[in-house]
Amino acid sequence: MPDDKTMTAPFTFTLHKTDGMARRGDFVTPHGRVQTPAFMPVGTAGTVKGLKPEDVRATGAEIVLGNTYHLMLRPGPERVAALGGLHSFMHWPLPILTDSGGFQVMSLSSLRKLTEHAVTFRSHLDGTMFELSPERSIEIQALLGADISMQLDECLKLPAKRDEMQRAMELSLRWAERSRRAFEARQAEGYALFGIVQGGDDMDLRATSARELVDIGFEGYAIGGLAVGEPQAVMLKVVEETTPQLPAERPRYLMGVGTPHDILEAVARGIDMFDCVMPTRNGRHGMAFTRFGAINLSNARHADDSRPLDEESPHPIARTYSRAYLHHLVKANEMLGAVLLSTVNIAYYQALTAGMRAAIEAGRFADFRAQTMAAWSQGDIPPP
Amino acid sequence: MPDDKTMTAPFTFTLHKTDGMARRGDFVTPHGRVQTPAFMPVGTAGTVKGLKPEDVRATGAEIVLGNTYHLMLRPGPERVAALGGLHSFMHWPLPILTDSGGFQVMSLSSLRKLTEHAVTFRSHLDGTMFELSPERSIEIQALLGADISMQLDECLKLPAKRDEMQRAMELSLRWAERSRRAFEARQAEGYALFGIVQGGDDMDLRATSARELVDIGFEGYAIGGLAVGEPQAVMLKVVEETTPQLPAERPRYLMGVGTPHDILEAVARGIDMFDCVMPTRNGRHGMAFTRFGAINLSNARHADDSRPLDEESPHPIARTYSRAYLHHLVKANEMLGAVLLSTVNIAYYQALTAGMRAAIEAGRFADFRAQTMAAWSQGDIPPP
Repeated sequence: MPDDKTMTAPFTFTLHKTDGMARRGDFVTPHGRVQTPAFMPVGTAGTVKGLKPEDVRATGAEIVLGNTYHLMLRPGPERVAALGGLHSFMHWPLPILTDSGGFQVMSLSSLRKLTEHAVTFRSHLDGTMFELSPERSIEIQALLGADISMQLDECLKLPAKRDEMQRAMELSLRWAERSRRAFEARQAEGYALFGIVQGGDDMDLRATSARELVDIGFEGYAIGGLAVGEPQAVMLKVVEETTPQLPAERPRYLMGVGTPHDILEAVARGIDMFDCVMPTRNGRHGMAFTRFGAINLSNARHADDSRPLDEESPHPIARTYSRAYLHHLVKANEMLGAVLLSTVNIAYYQALTAGMRAAIEAGRFADFRAQTMAAWSQGDIPPP
Repeated sequence: MPDDKTMTAPFTFTLHKTDGMARRGDFVTPHGRVQTPAFMPVGTAGTVKGLKPEDVRATGAEIVLGNTYHLMLRPGPERVAALGGLHSFMHWPLPILTDSGGFQVMSLSSLRKLTEHAVTFRSHLDGTMFELSPERSIEIQALLGADISMQLDECLKLPAKRDEMQRAMELSLRWAERSRRAFEARQAEGYALFGIVQGGDDMDLRATSARELVDIGFEGYAIGGLAVGEPQAVMLKVVEETTPQLPAERPRYLMGVGTPHDILEAVARGIDMFDCVMPTRNGRHGMAFTRFGAINLSNARHADDSRPLDEESPHPIARTYSRAYLHHLVKANEMLGAVLLSTVNIAYYQALTAGMRAAIEAGRFADFRAQTMAAWSQGDIPPP
């Protein structure tokens, strides 16, 4: 597995087809090609929780996300680099996108101190003090060997005051410039850096952020600061009004989103990439995402149900194990329940994005969207 | 997968070769053949903790153990039967041995009450009262569809007083007779019932127990009531003096044992079958069993070690992941650490029994035993 090969081919994104605002494309990284719309399973601490890398691959995933914050704290990026980089460390030979650490610094650490230069924080693990600047974030992501790096940004919870949103957005822009400069050598090696549009739920701020980021120029653009407490309608409005301000020839990534319904609606509004802990986290809590909607397997009504989750699923786990067995594993708090449900959930997200890709190619995305939503209503938990 | 086929071929054990007291054989059950010496991974609640059945199979395991006590409490044997039996429920198409429930009733439940008829106890899960008689234990194991059933017995902790050991042994003999009668219909279908030699550390009691069980006649014989607190030397002495009293043409099963060293020494004393939670339980706690001895992966000295556990292991996990990565997963309490270490540990137990089988066939068991023990001394934790 070519973890140490020198790549000079540039990061490229190809847009194959559009259908309304929905887009079918792919991008090429030093570790391979990724088809879009793409869902990236989250490999927080160097592992997609509970899954062996070959099991992640077997869901159809072509790229995973690694968390700079978690890996910075433990085992440490210099150590990962000495061990051959994150691909080798976690034995995942395909593309990896790493976030910048900014989101987790805000949500997990204590005693944060934010200055123009950097954010200083105390580890939630052992209290050690760390400093994360835009340059250090880029350095860490290089040590990890990320195919796609993210700029350091400041992410606020919503609702927030306008002046707070403006301050954070403007700081994020200045950090975007510093990130871009710090990334020059890696860009020449074919790696990609994405800028992150901020501005909360204020569309003027979002427009300013998008325009200035495009002026700096990135290999891709993310929409950050969403799925942080706002209603779905607010999130989708921001997405819908932001994507037209981003260049068509670059991939667009909606960070930290979301439910299958969020993803369907965001693709309908021009998003290409997603990541979310929901399939694994909810899987650990007994929920299965299926074509028929979400199924809560801890519910006693599944105790005697010999049917599999979905006998027509492309993934064998969804076809093989009975709902009664999955219910039993969940009730008994057995690790295998978490493993099986995390796997089928990621597989469902992959099947959903694969279905959207095929629908966009065929020019029938609107039909696919309507049919998919109608089928979901058969589950325990209808989509929002 | 032929879970519901009617089998009429009898359970058969074939002894291929002996080398000293060590034995190389196999037995045939309705769900297939098992080579001995054999190690049976423990699938307590219908799952070998953390492993998909195909991952259990890939370790080389040919049979797993299911726990009557746990499955009786949850999800219930009538439910498992309605869902097609335990093979179908847990998607394990190969042989299953179930214990009788006696051991866990003693060790896990509260408010036990033992009479000649049965043991009554309160579930450790929800306080429900259950009664387990020899006949009900056989019925439960039939509902589960076990290829090999065990008689209900009374298992004591050691040390124990002689009159207590005698009383429990004699009760276990009377329960053995009742179990044998209750099993008649299943015996005719090719399923096997094993009797259990009891008697604590008193060799006169053990001899009586063995003689009386052989008079009743079983498809195989287990030695129970060991690995319950006594020194290894006591356990091995009981094994060594009991196996010659058991018929050579029947398999011999040492219940709940043990470390790799225990197993090596017990095979040297004529044992054919083992089960133990140690590979999975210790795997969940960061310990790897290898050819070089046990390795404690939580130890900081593994943090930068890029070597795999054993580059010549027959199992890919032991060849693939670095000790540094496994250390990281253990320190981060990541589920994948438990999954990977449980798997490599079961694979090591399977490699150990496969090595013993080959050595006995070749008439070089004594050499194998000496070489295996010498290699173990390189680990973190030398064998006892």
